[in-house]
Amino acid sequence: MHDIVIGVDLGGTNIKAGAVSYDGRVLFRCRTTTEGHMGPAAVVDRIAQAIRDCLAGVEGGRERTAGVCVGSPGPLDLKNGVVLTAPNLPGWVNVPLRAMVEERVGLPCVVENDANAAALGEQWVGAGSGADSLVLLTLGTGIGGGIVLNGKIWHGFTGVAAEIGHMSINPDGPACNCGGRGCIEAYASATAMVRRMREAIAAGRHSSLASKGEKLTARDIYEACVAGDQAALENMHTTGFYLGVAIANILNVLNPEVVVLSGGVTAAGDLLLRPIQQTVREHALEAAREGVRICFSALGDDAGVIGAARSFMTWDIGR
Amino acid sequence: MHDIVIGVDLGGTNIKAGAVSYDGRVLFRCRTTTEGHMGPAAVVDRIAQAIRDCLAGVEGGRERTAGVCVGSPGPLDLKNGVVLTAPNLPGWVNVPLRAMVEERVGLPCVVENDANAAALGEQWVGAGSGADSLVLLTLGTGIGGGIVLNGKIWHGFTGVAAEIGHMSINPDGPACNCGGRGCIEAYASATAMVRRMREAIAAGRHSSLASKGEKLTARDIYEACVAGDQAALENMHTTGFYLGVAIANILNVLNPEVVVLSGGVTAAGDLLLRPIQQTVREHALEAAREGVRICFSALGDDAGVIGAARSFMTWDIGR
Repeated sequence: MHDIVIGVDLGGTNIKAGAVSYDGRVLFRCRTTTEGHMGPAAVVDRIAQAIRDCLAGVEGGRERTAGVCVGSPGPLDLKNGVVLTAPNLPGWVNVPLRAMVEERVGLPCVVENDANAAALGEQWVGAGSGADSLVLLTLGTGIGGGIVLNGKIWHGFTGVAAEIGHMSINPDGPACNCGGRGCIEAYASATAMVRRMREAIAAGRHSSLASKGEKLTARDIYEACVAGDQAALENMHTTGFYLGVAIANILNVLNPEVVVLSGGVTAAGDLLLRPIQQTVREHALEAAREGVRICFSALGDDAGVIGAARSFMTWDIGR
Repeated sequence: MHDIVIGVDLGGTNIKAGAVSYDGRVLFRCRTTTEGHMGPAAVVDRIAQAIRDCLAGVEGGRERTAGVCVGSPGPLDLKNGVVLTAPNLPGWVNVPLRAMVEERVGLPCVVENDANAAALGEQWVGAGSGADSLVLLTLGTGIGGGIVLNGKIWHGFTGVAAEIGHMSINPDGPACNCGGRGCIEAYASATAMVRRMREAIAAGRHSSLASKGEKLTARDIYEACVAGDQAALENMHTTGFYLGVAIANILNVLNPEVVVLSGGVTAAGDLLLRPIQQTVREHALEAAREGVRICFSALGDDAGVIGAARSFMTWDIGR
């Protein structure tokens, strides 16, 4: 009887894997470095080893395991389990990840977008547990997203749905890496926060962060907020405002039950959540925000692993 | 054997009804005035008469008819078939439309949002025929929307999804009726086009439309475009630009297969579609616009009736 799926979360720095039961518990977890500089074949060897560790980590692991899902950065060819490109993994172009994993571990494998997987994990047993629909925003160097509707990932026509970071909230706004302008990623990613902080300091704004120079990070901004730095607090408030505008748009268009925010900057807690909620009240239709939960990730580091496992359990694309 | 559904499109001015076959053909259609000033009971009497006319209009109509769906302005309580309010229908507050229609015609009835119904009609046998996912924008006094995913209307958590007109593309933009700012409705509805044209004329811009004064309509702007009026052409181009930004956002977030535009202003044809397509190329991710069709309604006046009938056929909310 299969009662386990191995979920893998492939990141630019770390590979996380876990043996996940069909009721969403992580029975065994392991973590290793990605060593992306060694190229795709070596990284997939490390993924395979992490999977084997998980199989060995639970009693009767191999017999109990239905399969594997790797949550991967993208874009992906979901149907064929191919990573088309992965910005943080050198040399990853058209890597047949599914086939490579299957060959190495002898278990059926699927490949899902990492943010989609995290969204599904949160909807299954995390911040959106019990909800039918959920939108996840991952706040990091960029802003990613995942959309779960009727308990399933919404992939879209060409498989690239939920690029929420590239929703423009000002066609005359700052240029974004994607070629567009005023994308929410260009306003509220960690990169954008740092850029805005540097600009404020360069414009003569007093801040304890002035000494950081080129080494300034979003984490520094959060810590300066906690220490009461006014410029940092304003930066965080502005970030929350822009996220609030984007979330209000998501509520008006999709009317999901839960919106989950994940990523390092959520450490800021209410300093970030309060301006988001205030902006949502001002910009979303009452009927579209009524009873909607806007909250932080409940699964934290496990979201990708649990969500990947759930992706395998609910998979319906071309296998 | 049931092989017909009666679809009704309830508008502020007209009631349209049709006997629709299970393969999407309108076997009989009728139209009457709404006479909204007479109040809800009288309007529902007129709806019931239109339904009876449809039943009589096809041979064996009553025996062949599975039920009725009324596409209604909203907001609605979909589960109970109640119209909560309808801005263009005086006195419509908590009107139990479903029960009133069922009582009058003795057939099962459901009530769907009018723009949702039109979206489903276009996806079924219209501009999006054969597509799995479609987003419709209705361009009129306001901007409404409908979202069809996996061949079904996406209603959202509280039933108000697809309020696409209230996607903000500039939190510092013009105030919108909804209380927000920079909503696409405040930039690209017929109302917004007329306001922008008046502002241009007031600012001294030369235009053949200057003589229209308070009577200026979006149709006048379209006609002035055809006649080569430069200010009108710029107005249309700007409208297309804003719609393009909104559609690019929809593609990046939802990645649908088809985007359909309907409403009077689509008479402008390529004058509107070209700036939309150009803006989408500049603002949407390539993978999210690849192979996506952006087009005008194929069903025109029939979309609401056909879509309402299809809503009954695919209904899965609380009955």
